[in-house]
Amino acid sequence: MTHSIAEIARALGAEMVGDGEYRIARAAEPAGAGRGDLALAMDERKYGAALRSAQAEAAVLWDGADWRELGLVAAIFVKRPRVAMASLTSMLDPGADRWEGIHPSAVIAQDAVIGADAAIGPFCVIGPGARIGPGARIGAHVTIAGGAIIGAGARIADGVRIARNVRIGDRIICQPNAVIGSDGFSFVTPEKSAVEQVRGTLGDRGDATGQSWLRIHSLGGVEIGDDVEIGAGSTIDAGTIRATGIGSGTKLDNLVHVGHNVQVGRDCLLCGQVGIAGSARIGDRVVLGGQCGVSDNIFVGDDVIAGGATKIFSNAPAGRVLLGSPALKMETHVEAWKNIRRLGRLYEQVADLRARIERKDRDRD
Amino acid sequence: MTHSIAEIARALGAEMVGDGEYRIARAAEPAGAGRGDLALAMDERKYGAALRSAQAEAAVLWDGADWRELGLVAAIFVKRPRVAMASLTSMLDPGADRWEGIHPSAVIAQDAVIGADAAIGPFCVIGPGARIGPGARIGAHVTIAGGAIIGAGARIADGVRIARNVRIGDRIICQPNAVIGSDGFSFVTPEKSAVEQVRGTLGDRGDATGQSWLRIHSLGGVEIGDDVEIGAGSTIDAGTIRATGIGSGTKLDNLVHVGHNVQVGRDCLLCGQVGIAGSARIGDRVVLGGQCGVSDNIFVGDDVIAGGATKIFSNAPAGRVLLGSPALKMETHVEAWKNIRRLGRLYEQVADLRARIERKDRDRD
Amino acid sequence: MTHSIAEIARALGAEMVGDGEYRIARAAEPAGAGRGDLALAMDERKYGAALRSAQAEAAVLWDGADWRELGLVAAIFVKRPRVAMASLTSMLDPGADRWEGIHPSAVIAQDAVIGADAAIGPFCVIGPGARIGPGARIGAHVTIAGGAIIGAGARIADGVRIARNVRIGDRIICQPNAVIGSDGFSFVTPEKSAVEQVRGTLGDRGDATGQSWLRIHSLGGVEIGDDVEIGAGSTIDAGTIRATGIGSGTKLDNLVHVGHNVQVGRDCLLCGQVGIAGSARIGDRVVLGGQCGVSDNIFVGDDVIAGGATKIFSNAPAGRVLLGSPALKMETHVEAWKNIRRLGRLYEQVADLRARIERKDRDRD
Repeated sequence: MTHSIAEIARALGAEMVGDGEYRIARAAEPAGAGRGDLALAMDERKYGAALRSAQAEAAVLWDGADWRELGLVAAIFVKRPRVAMASLTSMLDPGADRWEGIHPSAVIAQDAVIGADAAIGPFCVIGPGARIGPGARIGAHVTIAGGAIIGAGARIADGVRIARNVRIGDRIICQPNAVIGSDGFSFVTPEKSAVEQVRGTLGDRGDATGQSWLRIHSLGGVEIGDDVEIGAGSTIDAGTIRATGIGSGTKLDNLVHVGHNVQVGRDCLLCGQVGIAGSARIGDRVVLGGQCGVSDNIFVGDDVIAGGATKIFSNAPAGRVLLGSPALKMETHVEAWKNIRRLGRLYEQVADLRARIERKDRDRD
Repeated sequence: MTHSIAEIARALGAEMVGDGEYRIARAAEPAGAGRGDLALAMDERKYGAALRSAQAEAAVLWDGADWRELGLVAAIFVKRPRVAMASLTSMLDPGADRWEGIHPSAVIAQDAVIGADAAIGPFCVIGPGARIGPGARIGAHVTIAGGAIIGAGARIADGVRIARNVRIGDRIICQPNAVIGSDGFSFVTPEKSAVEQVRGTLGDRGDATGQSWLRIHSLGGVEIGDDVEIGAGSTIDAGTIRATGIGSGTKLDNLVHVGHNVQVGRDCLLCGQVGIAGSARIGDRVVLGGQCGVSDNIFVGDDVIAGGATKIFSNAPAGRVLLGSPALKMETHVEAWKNIRRLGRLYEQVADLRARIERKDRDRD
Repeated sequence: MTHSIAEIARALGAEMVGDGEYRIARAAEPAGAGRGDLALAMDERKYGAALRSAQAEAAVLWDGADWRELGLVAAIFVKRPRVAMASLTSMLDPGADRWEGIHPSAVIAQDAVIGADAAIGPFCVIGPGARIGPGARIGAHVTIAGGAIIGAGARIADGVRIARNVRIGDRIICQPNAVIGSDGFSFVTPEKSAVEQVRGTLGDRGDATGQSWLRIHSLGGVEIGDDVEIGAGSTIDAGTIRATGIGSGTKLDNLVHVGHNVQVGRDCLLCGQVGIAGSARIGDRVVLGGQCGVSDNIFVGDDVIAGGATKIFSNAPAGRVLLGSPALKMETHVEAWKNIRRLGRLYEQVADLRARIERKDRDRD
């Protein structure tokens, strides 16, 4: 499938120059772009030289570029390159393998309700009473438990597991092998445990003795809004009594762990390998960089931004920018590490001061 | 399915008041509790107000609550709320989808031994010589390799992979997409590698040169005790010659990584995204918070408790409470960060002292 | 299947003594070794005593051991024990369950090209135009999307997901439930987002307001060299326009996350739960210990070695040895923590100096 430059410019709301009828089949980095490709060269410093020596005849160009001098047949100028990338890549994406209708090997309970125009891949298993909205594109090997409810336009990749008591809004995207609705990690000892004692006393465990763990079952399921994406291998545990919640517009990267009872707000980004412990509450528009951690039962306010590997152990007020382990305000963290790195000199200075004072003391005697 | 309040109180060993014949279908948080629900209101501060305005007619109440004044028909008083939650949620849990017997699509080797009353879901694959105890409830898409041995009462969710040479005790619970018995990550270079040199010399790599990695195969399998739970997406590698071991009563949360040859003791809790590197030994009743890491070949003693994101690089004696990266005793860690955060003032004080001494020196001249 | 001691010695290029015709069926640690086992006792201190009391009649011994005095029938002496382990374990590994040819339940597109001598397990799904080289051993429940290309000798375990636009060299090993080619985590807001502003201004977010995220699709796929291993549950995201790349000889442990557009060089080791954010570039022979993190868009030079849980936020020159979060040169990190742990005394010393100076000031008045 090919697209004309005019058609693309129109879709991007972008300016076009040259032959609008020129057709391209794919986008490419300038270094590897040939005829029939759309070279993406929105940054002259990074891509100018490569574009000049490429075979490409069409390109998205940096502001002020001279498309004729670059030997192009047609070109597009965009305002915010990454926004343009969103439209462009969406347009050029043929999508994953799409099964025609429901594959005959799928095991679907008689009373499951599958919306119109659904594509369901081989070896899917859909349990009794499950409801899947119209336009679903479900890959191979997906399991959707009895009673689960999924909205319209779902795109669920191979090997995803959706457990009982999961309710999902419209346009969910699940990457391969994601798990939604696994049991929460919630155990208790018959008598007060060492962990509880340590929390109470900050270190003295008294005479807590070994006991086996009793399991608290997860009856609350998971509730997910609209336009959510769940990354490959990520796991979202069910709540105990109320549902674990993920707000609309929130995106989870790969291998993210969301514990039981957690509430994540709207339009958050949880990057790769983020972990959120049980019953934590995350506000709206929160961005947690890769490998961030959030302790159980704490609160992270709206618009908090945490850099990669930040470990948040206590409540974070709205709007705070956090770094480090333990998490500190960004400026405090930067200052702390600047101070730590100068410690060698400080030790020398203090030793020198002591020597001088002692000399004085001796002189005086 | 419903339960009478009397029946529940009996199961919890708890005190009951009001109409013991009142029947409930599910537990609910007070805010959302209606007729036929059992409102969970063990904490007056958190739930008192919500309960007063709820439609609920039955509740588990905080000590000293006046159930009549709260407008209830029946109520239960428990001693240790979280322990009560274990019994109660277990009682009210209908369990995951249960397949009737062995689904006809499952591929089961002729000489595999499946215990009585087993439920095995669609598309399971069970290899030659595998043995599964009685009462197993195995979901869809599970693979159990040839020769694997699993005890009685197993509950294995969708997409779990159990490799060869895995022996598991009774009552295992595996959450979706867990992997048990993958190959260990064990490589060696023909000549001494840079990593080995750095370990030996703490930084000087000498003239170690690039070499490709030779693979050490994993022949030792995995041995798991009774009453173990493995979280969603967690991975447990096989040992090289001897088995990787997980002791009875130990629970692993989601996305936990246990390397080859690791020995984990009994009744441990490994929270979300914990990683334990090859050949580490973990004692009994150890609790590792989310995202903790344990270096290879080290020893973590019985009853060690490590807070979230603690990174343990060296042996930890029994009973120690650890925090931070690198892991320190809790008090040392707390003190260290208190000291770090005061460094700005310390720098000022030292600068001030220097100025004063220099002034003195000048004055004297 | 058994092997004679002579045969094993030959394969290891090792010295043999005693009865070369003695046959063993498996290797064992000395403590558990019996007749017909090959006891692995390359370290006298660790295994000498156990071997003396074991029933084993054959062993791989430490340098200078007296095999007759140890009561053995045959023995092997090796030079570099871990290298010997590579050969030996490879020789004794019967391999995972191997399906005879292509299992009839597999769903394979008519125009997919499957190489000679392939073994493909139950419930595999192979899409249109996929190409798999000769000698493949593919487990159960594997999905290989349309157009994916896999070289010769692939060993792909149960539940692996290989998406569209993935090209893999020869001898790939994929552990269970690994995901290759999931969509990248790449989102943009219509207007400048808070994250972009924070990056620019180091903390002041100005008046950035909440916006929903636009998705940048991943069209670039993944390109993997020869002799690569991917651990259980690991995820490798597809690139946006160009492919995410993993160089030949590189090994990934379990639950490793490689973001979109990342380039990893040759012969690297990425240990358990390592995370590499989008567009980072990793050189050749880089070793990242467990739970390391690498920020997006940075560069880690050839031969860098990072200890466990090192978080790399900025470019790392070739050959550097890194530790800590934030990552520092190993010596700087060690020095920093030595200095931090002495801070209590430093505070005391400075207080003492102040007191002395103040006393002097008072004395003088």
